Amino acid sequence: MSISNAQATSSIQICRIMRPDDANIVGNVHGGTILKMIEEAGCIIGTRHCNTQNGDHCLAALARVERTDFLYPMFIGEVAHVSAEITYTSKHSVEVQINVLSENIVTGTKKLTNKATLWYVPLSLQNVTKIIEVPPIEYSSSEQEEAGKKRYEAQKLERLETKERNGEIIMSVSLPEPYTVAFSQSSLIHLVGPSDCTLHGFVHGGVTMKLMDEVAGIVAVRHCKTNIVTASVDAINFHRKIKKGCVITVSGRMTFTSNKSMEIEVFVDADYLVEAEKGKYRAVTAFFTYISLDKDNKPLPVPPLKLEGEEEQKRFEEGKARYLQNKAKRLADKECK
Amino acid sequence: MSISNAQATSSIQICRIMRPDDANIVGNVHGGTILKMIEEAGCIIGTRHCNTQNGDHCLAALARVERTDFLYPMFIGEVAHVSAEITYTSKHSVEVQINVLSENIVTGTKKLTNKATLWYVPLSLQNVTKIIEVPPIEYSSSEQEEAGKKRYEAQKLERLETKERNGEIIMSVSLPEPYTVAFSQSSLIHLVGPSDCTLHGFVHGGVTMKLMDEVAGIVAVRHCKTNIVTASVDAINFHRKIKKGCVITVSGRMTFTSNKSMEIEVFVDADYLVEAEKGKYRAVTAFFTYISLDKDNKPLPVPPLKLEGEEEQKRFEEGKARYLQNKAKRLADKECK
Amino acid sequence: MSISNAQATSSIQICRIMRPDDANIVGNVHGGTILKMIEEAGCIIGTRHCNTQNGDHCLAALARVERTDFLYPMFIGEVAHVSAEITYTSKHSVEVQINVLSENIVTGTKKLTNKATLWYVPLSLQNVTKIIEVPPIEYSSSEQEEAGKKRYEAQKLERLETKERNGEIIMSVSLPEPYTVAFSQSSLIHLVGPSDCTLHGFVHGGVTMKLMDEVAGIVAVRHCKTNIVTASVDAINFHRKIKKGCVITVSGRMTFTSNKSMEIEVFVDADYLVEAEKGKYRAVTAFFTYISLDKDNKPLPVPPLKLEGEEEQKRFEEGKARYLQNKAKRLADKECK
Repeated sequence: MSISNAQATSSIQICRIMRPDDANIVGNVHGGTILKMIEEAGCIIGTRHCNTQNGDHCLAALARVERTDFLYPMFIGEVAHVSAEITYTSKHSVEVQINVLSENIVTGTKKLTNKATLWYVPLSLQNVTKIIEVPPIEYSSSEQEEAGKKRYEAQKLERLETKERNGEIIMSVSLPEPYTVAFSQSSLIHLVGPSDCTLHGFVHGGVTMKLMDEVAGIVAVRHCKTNIVTASVDAINFHRKIKKGCVITVSGRMTFTSNKSMEIEVFVDADYLVEAEKGKYRAVTAFFTYISLDKDNKPLPVPPLKLEGEEEQKRFEEGKARYLQNKAKRLADKECK
Repeated sequence: MSISNAQATSSIQICRIMRPDDANIVGNVHGGTILKMIEEAGCIIGTRHCNTQNGDHCLAALARVERTDFLYPMFIGEVAHVSAEITYTSKHSVEVQINVLSENIVTGTKKLTNKATLWYVPLSLQNVTKIIEVPPIEYSSSEQEEAGKKRYEAQKLERLETKERNGEIIMSVSLPEPYTVAFSQSSLIHLVGPSDCTLHGFVHGGVTMKLMDEVAGIVAVRHCKTNIVTASVDAINFHRKIKKGCVITVSGRMTFTSNKSMEIEVFVDADYLVEAEKGKYRAVTAFFTYISLDKDNKPLPVPPLKLEGEEEQKRFEEGKARYLQNKAKRLADKECK
Repeated sequence: MSISNAQATSSIQICRIMRPDDANIVGNVHGGTILKMIEEAGCIIGTRHCNTQNGDHCLAALARVERTDFLYPMFIGEVAHVSAEITYTSKHSVEVQINVLSENIVTGTKKLTNKATLWYVPLSLQNVTKIIEVPPIEYSSSEQEEAGKKRYEAQKLERLETKERNGEIIMSVSLPEPYTVAFSQSSLIHLVGPSDCTLHGFVHGGVTMKLMDEVAGIVAVRHCKTNIVTASVDAINFHRKIKKGCVITVSGRMTFTSNKSMEIEVFVDADYLVEAEKGKYRAVTAFFTYISLDKDNKPLPVPPLKLEGEEEQKRFEEGKARYLQNKAKRLADKECK
């Protein structure tokens, strides 16, 4: 049960059982789960190979994934087997070829679900901008080496060509000014997974609150660019439940800043993707307050929010009222004691 | 705050060590992590209590969280202790009060980091729209019961009042028409956590690809409202690395539909939140292709994409070219064999 | 890169990179992470084997883990390789032997970190109370078969004997003195989620062992306030299954300290949250042994346990007997070689 040395540097096999969290609610494993396993196998074998000679220690960094086809869906409870092999090395890059098999361990059925080719580049651990030299592999024939070289040249050409497409931007954003509401406002979407839900198939309130804190925290960091922590959360009412299979959109915008705190309003919208007639609805809203901390965990001053338009002004005033009310309440509580 | 036998159904204590993924890169535990633990404790104790008498089995669903203050930050390696106690019951709701302590198990230091009050409503497992009756708890004094009743009435009033605020919408969306590019386009943000990174502090390529597949999958479901699976991923180039502490924005838009497939273009942008001068940059782009499956995992027809404007038309044509090229290549490969 | 058929049913190898969340803050991988991987490998190979003949489809459920020693600590960034092999089959059970290697893919160093032996019982997927027959394996020699039979008989006897210890309960605390049992005793509660469970809806044995290691680790740190690692786990019997929808309470208390080790007894109780009438039951118990390490990973002396009362004295003596017995066994094993 040991790994023979010959095998050790040139191939690796990763496998694990597919869990509910790896799949959608129908039980189909996400392509992303497979891609992540593929890349882990490639990273292990690439890093291992590039450290087989003297010199700087290094990690293999993913440079390119060739086109990948998913031939069959995989399901919860099946075992995904990912086998990786180094098939070509240039001076500064490593080609890893990968096969993915699905195995139903109950029926014994096995299927080749996909193949992939990844290119890695070894970066020095001492100096991450330095690409180190790759030790050559041995080929079983000169034809094999030739074919590898062809693939190498082809992908190199393609990489150069695709660089240009990167200029585009997807959302029409008009580059808002720093410290405005528009500058820091953020939103995320989350596909509800099995672990997010109760036995009823409703999203746990705690899962929703965690996502709300995540978005609000990003808004706060975008505004003040420092280490921030949650200082308080205003009362939250859960008027409408969120069901399994929904996509949740969580959006946050800053409403108020005091000298040392930021108030962020967070909205949670749920969207029944499949049952479209049910439409999108507002599930929860809340106000989160953050403070900014220095290295000794002492509060830092917060840059004031730049307001644009009456709406923002009105929300700021409302935030200020909440801030003053809470401050008064805290003082009253202290005096009681 | 210890568990005695008598107390067993009316109090509970949850604890666990704070892990790297519970915190930001400075080591401060996210408020959201604590909120999630609080809600888990409340859900357990509420559900347990509401099932102590005969009748329908039920789950306690979160209806409201009172304002919560975070008194001290918590850190990785500390143990978070969440103790929950039922403090009031009305006919249809349960009040749970929660204390959170942080314990540094090395130094022995303990701190009360926050208190919270949650309201739960028991929903029947047989019929989730049915709210069942809550068994009453015993109060140590009539004053205690009176105080609970007051809190109950106060929150009830506040819940009614807040309902109105929910009408607002955050992003100015002009409600695009179904089957257009704008209708299904989606984006998510992800705060890079420790487990996403290599020893270099760079995001694993596999983590990025998983997020890309997640967004592209949501775009595909939004378009066709059925069960979808990843059919293929075009070559992906990783031109620029993504570092620890970045926020990743992953956006997807549909570019092309054939009879039975959808092509989605995905963009990954990285944003150095703290080192703002470094700005935002495009890290990766790729094309994902999805197919829609029926209950027997057979491909379904896909609604055609409605194009608006020249840009979308141009991208569609390019997508079609890629589609035809891949189809021709598959046929050629088959013939070779 | 295909799995040869001969290999396919009788061995399997799982590996993955150790991430920050798999380890403590010093970077030592939790014993629980390894136990969980071991159990996943055992479950795959056991399930696969038991489905190789006609008849009911089944899943292999963990019945027992033999005493397991952790020979070396593992670190974040290393690759854990878990290889499993079926080494004996009785009519209704399967023995799986497992080797765990740590591989530093940067330096190339490999170490055998532990070995484990697990016993599985195949439960029908149609009727989970039905244990199906196990197809026999082929032995390379009759000596090998004989030795397997001996191990089978020995564990069977031990399982019967240990059933009694399960009655005990751990409990209530009023500010105990340092180094006493009461001072370090700890418990956590976990709501079983979908990803914790098999297709049967039972909790994976590996998930339970990971939680046990987490609690025992907290007890150990509370006692000695230093970096600790799992040194060994005594045989664990899984007498009763834990179902989806349960709440698990895991409690640990220190029973014995030698100069350089701490023994912690861990109890796992399951509680049907919704079907409260079914009551709470003891699902698993076990003894975990920890050692304390300095910065160079050398063992440190452990503060002696302060005993209070006859019960604690008695448990200490029993712990001492186990400690001496294991020590004698280790010496005998060494001499054999």
